Amino acid sequence: MPQRTGRYTVQFQNRPVIMGFSAVGGKKEGEGPLAHAFDAIYEDTTLGESSWEKAESHMQRDAFAKALEGAGVTAGEIDYIFAGDLLNQSIGSVFGLKDYIVPFIGLYGACSTMAESLALSSVFVETGVAERCAAITSSHFCSAERQFRFPLEYCGQRPPSAQHTATAAGCVIVGNEGAGPFVAAVTFGRIVDKGIKDANNMGAAMAPAAAATIADFFNDTGTGPENYDLIITGDLSKVGTDLLIELLKREGIDISDKHADCGIMLYDIDKQDMHAGGSGCGCSAAVLCTYVLQNMRKGALNEVLFIGTGALMSPTSAQQGASIPSIAHLVHLSTKKEAD
Amino acid sequence: MPQRTGRYTVQFQNRPVIMGFSAVGGKKEGEGPLAHAFDAIYEDTTLGESSWEKAESHMQRDAFAKALEGAGVTAGEIDYIFAGDLLNQSIGSVFGLKDYIVPFIGLYGACSTMAESLALSSVFVETGVAERCAAITSSHFCSAERQFRFPLEYCGQRPPSAQHTATAAGCVIVGNEGAGPFVAAVTFGRIVDKGIKDANNMGAAMAPAAAATIADFFNDTGTGPENYDLIITGDLSKVGTDLLIELLKREGIDISDKHADCGIMLYDIDKQDMHAGGSGCGCSAAVLCTYVLQNMRKGALNEVLFIGTGALMSPTSAQQGASIPSIAHLVHLSTKKEAD
Repeated sequence: MPQRTGRYTVQFQNRPVIMGFSAVGGKKEGEGPLAHAFDAIYEDTTLGESSWEKAESHMQRDAFAKALEGAGVTAGEIDYIFAGDLLNQSIGSVFGLKDYIVPFIGLYGACSTMAESLALSSVFVETGVAERCAAITSSHFCSAERQFRFPLEYCGQRPPSAQHTATAAGCVIVGNEGAGPFVAAVTFGRIVDKGIKDANNMGAAMAPAAAATIADFFNDTGTGPENYDLIITGDLSKVGTDLLIELLKREGIDISDKHADCGIMLYDIDKQDMHAGGSGCGCSAAVLCTYVLQNMRKGALNEVLFIGTGALMSPTSAQQGASIPSIAHLVHLSTKKEAD
Repeated sequence: MPQRTGRYTVQFQNRPVIMGFSAVGGKKEGEGPLAHAFDAIYEDTTLGESSWEKAESHMQRDAFAKALEGAGVTAGEIDYIFAGDLLNQSIGSVFGLKDYIVPFIGLYGACSTMAESLALSSVFVETGVAERCAAITSSHFCSAERQFRFPLEYCGQRPPSAQHTATAAGCVIVGNEGAGPFVAAVTFGRIVDKGIKDANNMGAAMAPAAAATIADFFNDTGTGPENYDLIITGDLSKVGTDLLIELLKREGIDISDKHADCGIMLYDIDKQDMHAGGSGCGCSAAVLCTYVLQNMRKGALNEVLFIGTGALMSPTSAQQGASIPSIAHLVHLSTKKEAD
């Protein structure tokens, strides 16, 4: 049975198993430092589809299929799919996954969706509601640009604080059998809004949410940065990372030598001209399902805090002058089946 | 502990309690047959806000506050909020609820969101992950029209099969204490896509999803329409209702004398010129939180199946010629704390 610890954290007794995982990515992701770790890289980011949205759906389908293969199970053995994406009405997930006869629980958590879906999947498996769940998300640079910013043909200039939406999808299969890694705990975040209004600086908007969730988790569990090998956020990128470190220092928490950010890791930022770094649901999904989980499988990482961050605004709210409320959900991953 | 029954259904042993609930609505909802049952009716559907989106957020906040009051708890006693709406990036929920310091789990289930959020809340309470959760959703005719269809000023004509997006919000507080009603079981739906492409006939698109979920629930539990006082869908409206009855008859299931539809109940359709009936997340939320739960409290209804239906398309997918995949999530509500 799960155990609520403190106000915000749920610690698992059974520790659900990461049975399989997969990441697929686009051309630019295939030119970055994690290129070799992807299960597939599409040189043609249309994936042969007639629209960017269909290409994004295609990526989710591929990520799901490859993760199932890795887990050694079929779609029919999955009890629930938890999925979502950045597209209006989540059409990336819906059209990507609509042909599977598997109960579908649609989410919206912006770029925090990988952590949100993984946390919910883990709760369902831990409690026996499900034997196996799939957590899936995606983003596509081209579908995101035309929905959130400008048509690609416009060739808009972006300020250095802007982030680049990753073309990628990730899927994790959570179940109750296998060698791990395991999900030890989750902390669902609360919305934090510090009044940032610049949609070209979402890292700054999201950093306070990440700081709140990380501090909540440490308070709830009585642990600190010293207990973990890696504290990885996705996706604060450069500006947000500096702010996160600073905000937590003010609380007496120094994560600086344990912290990494998916938005910074996915690209060779300077060489690839990625401004502040990557973003999009697919960014943290891809880094989780390549670098993080592969290194945990190898034993190179043992205790990891994965914190998905999301900027909960829309073009409409931005046009109406509203701030950018943000959220961060945390998943504690461990190579140990039982707590010490 | 919850118990999976069959492929799709989770039956609860503890039966989470509906501790409180609330519905608020707009002017047209205040002219319909359920007017007297709302906790608040806004004659001015701007709610004094400067945009329709802000008005929608305001409704969610009001519904949450009134449901908390009814449940006799404070926001600080809520462990998780499950919420979502129809607006791009779910800004109705985000901006409505951002100032509460409560973990927020964002959903996208289109018009099925009331059932989806109530089902997830119930799972969290049943399993001890939470003591209390809030399930919240909304829709606003004016924010939906301008996002999904035409600016109001355009005065577009609508065919008789079109539905009218309700201006309403609903909230249910689920916990582990109180006199009921109780949540006995949930069935999360799978996506069903029969190829319907007419966004002015969403009832027809959603009916097969509702039929699938209802049939799954009956198969899983070994029960039938005779075991329930009311089988209420939201929102198939006129066209979809006829199709649902017909589709289930083909499976040997006759729900015709137990069935009602939130989209038909919210308005006096002919007198109010509502075409095929109501729709929108707020429609089924409002009917659940007025007619259904109030009659369960009075003992006039004892065993109810509430089936939220959602059309999972977007303007972009429709413009690209895609079909309308749909989903339906079912919640079995009962006035009995224990199964027979």
